[in-house]
Amino acid sequence: MEQNEIIIKFPDGNEKRYDKGISLEDIAQSISPSLRKKSVGGMVNDALYDYTRGINDDAYIELFSLNSPRGVEIMRHTAAHILAQAVKRLYGNVHLGIGPVIENGFYYDIDLEVNMTVHDLAMIEKEMNNIISENLCIMREEISREKAKEIFAHDPLKLELLEDIPLEEAITVYRQGEFIDLCRGPHLPATHLIKAFKLTHVSGAYWRGDSNSKVLQRIYGVAFATKEDLEDYFHNMEEAQKRNHRKLGSELELFMFSEEAPGMPFYLPNGQIIRNELETFLRKLQTSYDYKEVRTPTMMNQQLWEKSGHWEHYKENMYFSNVDDQSFALKPMNCPGHMLIFKNKLHSYRDLPVRMAEFGQVHRHEFSGALNGMLRVRTFCQDDAHIFVTPDQIEAEIALALNVIDYVYRTFGFNYEIELSTRPENYMGDDGLWEKAEDALKNVLNKLSYEYKINPGDGAFYGPKIDVHIKDALKRSHQCATVQLDFQMPEKFDLTYIDEQNKKVRPVVIHRAVFGSLDRFLGILIEHFGGAFPIWLAPVQVKVIAVSNNIHQAYVEEIVHRLKQEEIRVELDLRDEKLGYKIREAQIKKIPHILVIGDKELENQSVNVRHYGKRDSIEVELEEFISKLKESIEKKIS
Amino acid sequence: MEQNEIIIKFPDGNEKRYDKGISLEDIAQSISPSLRKKSVGGMVNDALYDYTRGINDDAYIELFSLNSPRGVEIMRHTAAHILAQAVKRLYGNVHLGIGPVIENGFYYDIDLEVNMTVHDLAMIEKEMNNIISENLCIMREEISREKAKEIFAHDPLKLELLEDIPLEEAITVYRQGEFIDLCRGPHLPATHLIKAFKLTHVSGAYWRGDSNSKVLQRIYGVAFATKEDLEDYFHNMEEAQKRNHRKLGSELELFMFSEEAPGMPFYLPNGQIIRNELETFLRKLQTSYDYKEVRTPTMMNQQLWEKSGHWEHYKENMYFSNVDDQSFALKPMNCPGHMLIFKNKLHSYRDLPVRMAEFGQVHRHEFSGALNGMLRVRTFCQDDAHIFVTPDQIEAEIALALNVIDYVYRTFGFNYEIELSTRPENYMGDDGLWEKAEDALKNVLNKLSYEYKINPGDGAFYGPKIDVHIKDALKRSHQCATVQLDFQMPEKFDLTYIDEQNKKVRPVVIHRAVFGSLDRFLGILIEHFGGAFPIWLAPVQVKVIAVSNNIHQAYVEEIVHRLKQEEIRVELDLRDEKLGYKIREAQIKKIPHILVIGDKELENQSVNVRHYGKRDSIEVELEEFISKLKESIEKKIS
Repeated sequence: MEQNEIIIKFPDGNEKRYDKGISLEDIAQSISPSLRKKSVGGMVNDALYDYTRGINDDAYIELFSLNSPRGVEIMRHTAAHILAQAVKRLYGNVHLGIGPVIENGFYYDIDLEVNMTVHDLAMIEKEMNNIISENLCIMREEISREKAKEIFAHDPLKLELLEDIPLEEAITVYRQGEFIDLCRGPHLPATHLIKAFKLTHVSGAYWRGDSNSKVLQRIYGVAFATKEDLEDYFHNMEEAQKRNHRKLGSELELFMFSEEAPGMPFYLPNGQIIRNELETFLRKLQTSYDYKEVRTPTMMNQQLWEKSGHWEHYKENMYFSNVDDQSFALKPMNCPGHMLIFKNKLHSYRDLPVRMAEFGQVHRHEFSGALNGMLRVRTFCQDDAHIFVTPDQIEAEIALALNVIDYVYRTFGFNYEIELSTRPENYMGDDGLWEKAEDALKNVLNKLSYEYKINPGDGAFYGPKIDVHIKDALKRSHQCATVQLDFQMPEKFDLTYIDEQNKKVRPVVIHRAVFGSLDRFLGILIEHFGGAFPIWLAPVQVKVIAVSNNIHQAYVEEIVHRLKQEEIRVELDLRDEKLGYKIREAQIKKIPHILVIGDKELENQSVNVRHYGKRDSIEVELEEFISKLKESIEKKIS
Repeated sequence: MEQNEIIIKFPDGNEKRYDKGISLEDIAQSISPSLRKKSVGGMVNDALYDYTRGINDDAYIELFSLNSPRGVEIMRHTAAHILAQAVKRLYGNVHLGIGPVIENGFYYDIDLEVNMTVHDLAMIEKEMNNIISENLCIMREEISREKAKEIFAHDPLKLELLEDIPLEEAITVYRQGEFIDLCRGPHLPATHLIKAFKLTHVSGAYWRGDSNSKVLQRIYGVAFATKEDLEDYFHNMEEAQKRNHRKLGSELELFMFSEEAPGMPFYLPNGQIIRNELETFLRKLQTSYDYKEVRTPTMMNQQLWEKSGHWEHYKENMYFSNVDDQSFALKPMNCPGHMLIFKNKLHSYRDLPVRMAEFGQVHRHEFSGALNGMLRVRTFCQDDAHIFVTPDQIEAEIALALNVIDYVYRTFGFNYEIELSTRPENYMGDDGLWEKAEDALKNVLNKLSYEYKINPGDGAFYGPKIDVHIKDALKRSHQCATVQLDFQMPEKFDLTYIDEQNKKVRPVVIHRAVFGSLDRFLGILIEHFGGAFPIWLAPVQVKVIAVSNNIHQAYVEEIVHRLKQEEIRVELDLRDEKLGYKIREAQIKKIPHILVIGDKELENQSVNVRHYGKRDSIEVELEEFISKLKESIEKKIS
């Protein structure tokens, strides 16, 4: 092999020889012109490389296109440079800070005199489009520290960044036309590859996040590989805005907050109906799985929380009180209370598993800035359960717990993903037990044919766990259910049962939650359904409207009476308002069924039904309507 | 009329002349010897008189017999003297304190060397019976202060009592045989009239209740007009002991307490089932009365409690915490939270009444010595409601609230009594409004034909109220439900609605609770039913036992499966124990239905049912058993 040649390996296993210093672009061209056109950069061994950067050693390479995740990431980075270039062109003497990639886009922190407005953003966008049209080549250069200091002599922020680059590290700059920036890269090879971007807003930001430093202006933008992706993004944003649970929570009168108790929800009647339905649903399901419901106090004394370890490990998240000059804490978790209940009675192996459930109201401190409607609160109701098992029962009980979780999530139409977290560095307890436990969790997941991701070292110090992430209608992920093995709590509370050899031995505890927090789950449901709840959850299931209050009042009242007899949540609108207005209002409230009653319905003893979200209405016999509705409620379908 | 004559008026309106100084006994004799024999004392005008005490002025008199309430009271007082006399006879130099009448009996505080035991009580009782047999006459004497000091010269406690008698008051002593006591009386005329008494126990008691004084020995006794009454008393005591809710709560595994949270109940699975049933029952009933359920936070900040007045008036009963360096209080009542919810929205007169209900967990401090199982706790769930009304709606809404209360209490078979408490001295608000409100309450009670007692001046400072006292199976009274009018809370929270004239006006608030505290009500129910709950409340409704596990297992499992399908709470006992043992154990657990399944039942596809408390068992077809059971549960009958 010649000294000037290097060997390039490809993902398909092939190898090729090239001249030293060849770029990814030339390698692509050597394979096919279409591949060259399609690609925008690549991985060289473990490093991201610009398309045009020279490769000097043997390497394994992987090319990627603009619409691959890595391609989009690089493109967003280049968009940030184009933004900075446009600002420099428009405002002259500005000082640039940093311009990184963020979720869906990018920003650039800039120090300039003018206070940016929406009007400025439009102007900047226009100039960015000019730069894209100019199709400037983007060039990487490795330069000396001295040269860099010379280039950025009038850029104090860049000089500061330069100082922080370790001496052994190479210094790179990127050029496009008249613009040059200190940057590690990589970037796209040319500006015209930016296909779809939009500046979204501007806000103040401390230089390097330090509140003692200068406030810069941070201009935010989003960028995608295609115009369609950009449109989808704005559509989803709009949809998420419409579905915002705080907005809908207020419009549909589900819950409220008060400055008298920040982060502590007040359930309004409509929200309380949904909450009660959720509780009743899970209670009934758990009963069928032989769970036993208990209820433990809100406050317990310091000794208990010291014993459980919360006093040492969780104190900063807890609220405290005093009872008879003793320190008490409001429970942040239900576990210690359940341990006391288990301990209250002698247990034989014959009694196990003991499945102890509680709808437990817990309090956990959150910083006021972190509060977010129902999604982040300071008190919530946890659908908690602790299952006390013999080591042999672990697998079967985990499987049953996953069954319950699966049943609940399918009821709401949620897909979900499973993650298995294994022993962390600071784990406690016996190695053999840990191995057995991790194997048990894996065995169950494999037997049930679940796909799952392993998070090595991410388990709790007291045992490995399975986390379940649901995907809502807008494809957002929420961690809700959890199944955790615990070897420590039984130790701390000296829990025992009598085994078959008549010996006192320790049970294992499985912590389990399905909703996680009823309050947060309600918030997720509101956004998932956009407030149009399935019939069994809808606070008002049926709205009845008479075409003429004078003529049809007796019949609509009879209808309402019949529906109430069947425990259907019905409202009657007898106000002196126009029919259209009443129907529209019921639709805004997203009521699943609107019954409009006129002469024909009176004559036929029928109802005219408008289902929420459907354009047409249909006439159905009253009793048929009722029996179908009851079936939908019973089966929990929409 | 002669100077030596007085005129005596009788309850029947008659009048008679008698010699001055005549006794009630002689008056009775003058009417008939049987009346003389039957009576033991009387009222002379407003004063109680000994039977033999002379009457010196014209008077209205009422005689009473031994088994009248006043007769029994006097008899208990005399029994206390006989007790003291017996102790003096047996132990010689003792110092007597006081010997009053108490509920069901009497006690005497005595200073003596010997430490009394049960053995001593038996000896004293024997001596008391001797004194009764001796049939000593009991004589009242008015004496001078000097004479009294002389008599009690060696009785330091009596001398102290003597000091406290105001100078203008006459000093009286009572004699029976060798015994003399400083006493206001009155007493029976002779010792043999004591028909039925028993000494019960002895305990220490500070002289005059002052913890700096000497500890005396207090001997307790009970006494009744007849031996039957005495036996009934002991029978009831025994029954109450058997029904003690703490004892049954532990035996039936309903709840537990822990030293980690004194006075704060832990619900065990069986207790939680009952609690959930109670909540579901009332929730459904309230929904049918158009109540709207809400849920408010456990803690709210100091400003709120200052506004509501709790900070000033209720602070010593509250628990506190800190959130973000602000003082918060755990709610002792739900009212302020409900006011915030009402205020969250504009209201028109058309929206009223608003009936807002919450199963609200409240915390109220109690001294540790005052705690008593579920009957006196530090945290409980209140079935609270606030009804926001126009002044015109007060009457109708009170009537509806009483309907709900009546329905609930009748369901449990409770009789109840009603008390109306009117404006207290320190009342707040407008006189006219108070009058209207008190009249409204009276009108409602009259219209609904309720008998009720008026407690003048016993209302809350914010409005008059109706309290409802239930009578349990042992005839004990418990105040549970309350209906209170409140004019102050709407003022404090500046609540308004828009009236028909489009003006902002104040609503009136009705506070209302039915159970009062779910926890306390559960305690009362346990004692009322002696743990043998009606079928709809029973934690386990059916126990299934096979005559032979080998032969009948398949069929009993089928039965259990069928019952579970119908959501009946069923347990299967398949242990290797004798049939009789299993049945006995199920009976101890007071399970309403025990099904014993043998060959005959298997062949007939039937079940053999033993109802709790009935001696015989009957064979019923399985499906018939299920449908009857479901009907009983649905209708909430036993």
